Amino acid sequence: MNSGVSEDMYVLELARRRKSVRAYASSPIELGDVLYALRAAIQAPSGANQQPWRFIIITDPEVKARVRRVCEEGERKFYASVRGELRRWLDERGFTWRKPFLTEAPVLVAVFADMHKPYAVQSTWLAIGYMLLALEERGLSSLTYTPPNPGEVARTLGAPRGYMLQVLIPVGRSRDQRPKEPRKSLEEVAYVDSWSKRLSDVLS
Amino acid sequence: MNSGVSEDMYVLELARRRKSVRAYASSPIELGDVLYALRAAIQAPSGANQQPWRFIIITDPEVKARVRRVCEEGERKFYASVRGELRRWLDERGFTWRKPFLTEAPVLVAVFADMHKPYAVQSTWLAIGYMLLALEERGLSSLTYTPPNPGEVARTLGAPRGYMLQVLIPVGRSRDQRPKEPRKSLEEVAYVDSWSKRLSDVLS
Repeated sequence: MNSGVSEDMYVLELARRRKSVRAYASSPIELGDVLYALRAAIQAPSGANQQPWRFIIITDPEVKARVRRVCEEGERKFYASVRGELRRWLDERGFTWRKPFLTEAPVLVAVFADMHKPYAVQSTWLAIGYMLLALEERGLSSLTYTPPNPGEVARTLGAPRGYMLQVLIPVGRSRDQRPKEPRKSLEEVAYVDSWSKRLSDVLS
Repeated sequence: MNSGVSEDMYVLELARRRKSVRAYASSPIELGDVLYALRAAIQAPSGANQQPWRFIIITDPEVKARVRRVCEEGERKFYASVRGELRRWLDERGFTWRKPFLTEAPVLVAVFADMHKPYAVQSTWLAIGYMLLALEERGLSSLTYTPPNPGEVARTLGAPRGYMLQVLIPVGRSRDQRPKEPRKSLEEVAYVDSWSKRLSDVLS
């Protein structure tokens, strides 16, 4: 490991292996594994090193149930209004206003950003990237679930004004059989020196 | 490695080791290492799997010089106006409008977000988190540099309307002697079940 770091391609392996999981075994997980992922997250860079992220680790079934109820109220309204391409995308996957993973997963992590800090949203999501890879390393699945009514969820959790809920991350063991959603190739999203020069033109 | 994943704490090790680097050796790096990091980045989750990220890998010295010039014009205006706490933070570190790392680093990666996609900024910064850890794994240093005039930089690079420049990431070998900026402890930023219950109350 120590000597072979550059050979290992371990981060890429974790990144490839990780998929968004919407069905969880309710078996408990080690709190230490969640803390491990948060310890990685808080090492991320941030605007003027202001570390705008805050985390609530939720394990209490009553709190999870309350969060789920608030989210599902928001989702009902969202699903009643959503149309077009996004609606088709959701329907194809069988997604509805029901979010059972919010109570099913043994742990939910609510992530907030202090909106008074520079680049608060950007910094917090960068840290979330660290967190997801660290969870995957521990064999734990996750989902970046963004409720349509984050303000209501934040109030439910007692967040002070100015701290915006960014995401709810269920964490646990997957029982989701779906494959990972496919990704575009690097050639479709990367250019060289300017937007007019495709990576594929350079590599071939 | 394969059997000992949960023992290794490798992601945390990378996260801890990585620091923001503002001085680079100009020695060339392997393009393959940059592509490796981008391959990890594009595995990130995104809103409705829309993969809103786009990357320009800049190695041409003329393009880097042009980008630096545009950024420094923006920085001069920014430094002429910035006051208060942020100004103090910048001055303490000796930061000025000069951004030599933009031409010094052998590679610059410009990262854009397609603002028509859901959660475009959030998804793109999550992917940037993956990217930074993958670069660190390859022994490459980086900086998430956000110019004050991203629109002008985007035009310089020929980005179509709707794609917003999120960050310029110099990539190379560090010659920055400064230590990593300190981080708050996990106990300062994490709560359990609600904002009123500190992690330290639960762990002790």
